[in-house]
Amino acid sequence: MLAVPPLEEAGPPKVAAEFARLANDEMAELVTRHPDRFAGFAAALPLNDVDASLAEMDRTAKELGALGFQLFSNVNGVPLDDDRFEPLLAAAERLDRAFWLHPTRNATWADYPTEERSDYGLWWSLGWPYETAAALSRLVYSGRMEAHPRLKVIAHHGGGMVPHFPSRLAMGPGARQVGTSLPRPPMEYFRRFYADTALFGAAHAVRCVLDFFGPDHVLFGTDMPLGPPSATANTIADLESLRLSEADLARVFAGNAARVLGAGVATQDAG
Amino acid sequence: MLAVPPLEEAGPPKVAAEFARLANDEMAELVTRHPDRFAGFAAALPLNDVDASLAEMDRTAKELGALGFQLFSNVNGVPLDDDRFEPLLAAAERLDRAFWLHPTRNATWADYPTEERSDYGLWWSLGWPYETAAALSRLVYSGRMEAHPRLKVIAHHGGGMVPHFPSRLAMGPGARQVGTSLPRPPMEYFRRFYADTALFGAAHAVRCVLDFFGPDHVLFGTDMPLGPPSATANTIADLESLRLSEADLARVFAGNAARVLGAGVATQDAG
Repeated sequence: MLAVPPLEEAGPPKVAAEFARLANDEMAELVTRHPDRFAGFAAALPLNDVDASLAEMDRTAKELGALGFQLFSNVNGVPLDDDRFEPLLAAAERLDRAFWLHPTRNATWADYPTEERSDYGLWWSLGWPYETAAALSRLVYSGRMEAHPRLKVIAHHGGGMVPHFPSRLAMGPGARQVGTSLPRPPMEYFRRFYADTALFGAAHAVRCVLDFFGPDHVLFGTDMPLGPPSATANTIADLESLRLSEADLARVFAGNAARVLGAGVATQDAG
Repeated sequence: MLAVPPLEEAGPPKVAAEFARLANDEMAELVTRHPDRFAGFAAALPLNDVDASLAEMDRTAKELGALGFQLFSNVNGVPLDDDRFEPLLAAAERLDRAFWLHPTRNATWADYPTEERSDYGLWWSLGWPYETAAALSRLVYSGRMEAHPRLKVIAHHGGGMVPHFPSRLAMGPGARQVGTSLPRPPMEYFRRFYADTALFGAAHAVRCVLDFFGPDHVLFGTDMPLGPPSATANTIADLESLRLSEADLARVFAGNAARVLGAGVATQDAG
């Protein structure tokens, strides 16, 4: 194992909680000040401090109108199906707010056991989609998605590797390990996730995402303001090249977001 | 780093070389005995012993009519762009024989730095496609593909993650690290690889592979005799569902193999 601090030693929790609070207050203010530009925001959480995260989820959803919360694919190296994070999943479900799942991993996650670091940035280009899919897989195989049927998770970058290797996830050692402990086949849970379209311009990969999750579970997303300036235009062009029906295209561009983020969007409209 | 033995300590090389020789002699005999069932074989190599591998490549290509050689995505945890493997790449190019690239990784390659092992078999379901793409990436970014323009690498399982995340590989930190040291954009080298269709039944993922590599660089492949019995029929059905032209379908099913493995197939025909 790498020398990553365990969850409980990850720095003074109060600092993370205070940073999250500052960021969220400012995000809410930006949304209020520019309603023509922002439909809402996803709240940051001090994930190394579950109790503080729960309080911030409650505060941002009820007082600031957050549409949901940003969740990372691991917390200081701890996977999301760890028992310590179970209250976060339950709270999002109870508050009827989505999680935006973002990958996190850096060059210290080596690709080869004979190396100390990931070379050529593979920790990012390949590692993040892996990381995203691993997090979704852990939520499925562990039974978290079964325990939280109304949990909404929007996975960045098209859900990572999931749409591209579904048969491996459906029939591989994970499915065998789980056996009959889940009442449904793993793939049913995987299809409950939502994915965005942030693939930086790769129409065939976006189509693969749409084919797997279906046009009701894909939300338009880029990586703005990160990524190359062309990424947003490329992603729009990709979607328009796929010959989706007008109705499906409208769902991906806006309808699904309105539906999935419904409660929060309504709050914003009234605010 | 995990406690993986470095290349030079990976056991008495003579044992690996002798096993490879035994396996290859038997494969050649099977091909000779059943010409109606087998067009040829890929030779096993004792990859922990480069000199022995070189001798076995020469022997199997010239004496046994091997169509190519099986290469793994790492050798005892050492990536393929390591200088020690450079002679293997040069030899395959000189012999005009393909490498079949197969992923290798096991549960000791943990997904999270706080864990000792990969849970739910993710080392296989996600790890192998990652591993395949990482190996191809190392061959590209390191300049090996530039140095060996006639090297033919057929990557298993659709080339792993490569067709699904090309924009990340084209613009990410790997491309920035390489900068102008390569005369061509990285993606040009990635498109030189060949991929098979062994995705176990996932038409949208197979289509993504075809869209990326093009119908001239995809070879029909399943995982026979591994994988579920339905995998071969599912893969054929996937290909037939994609509305490829008859000519492209014929290329994927046989034409590309005949072209890519040309020298070897000719040897077999004459044998």
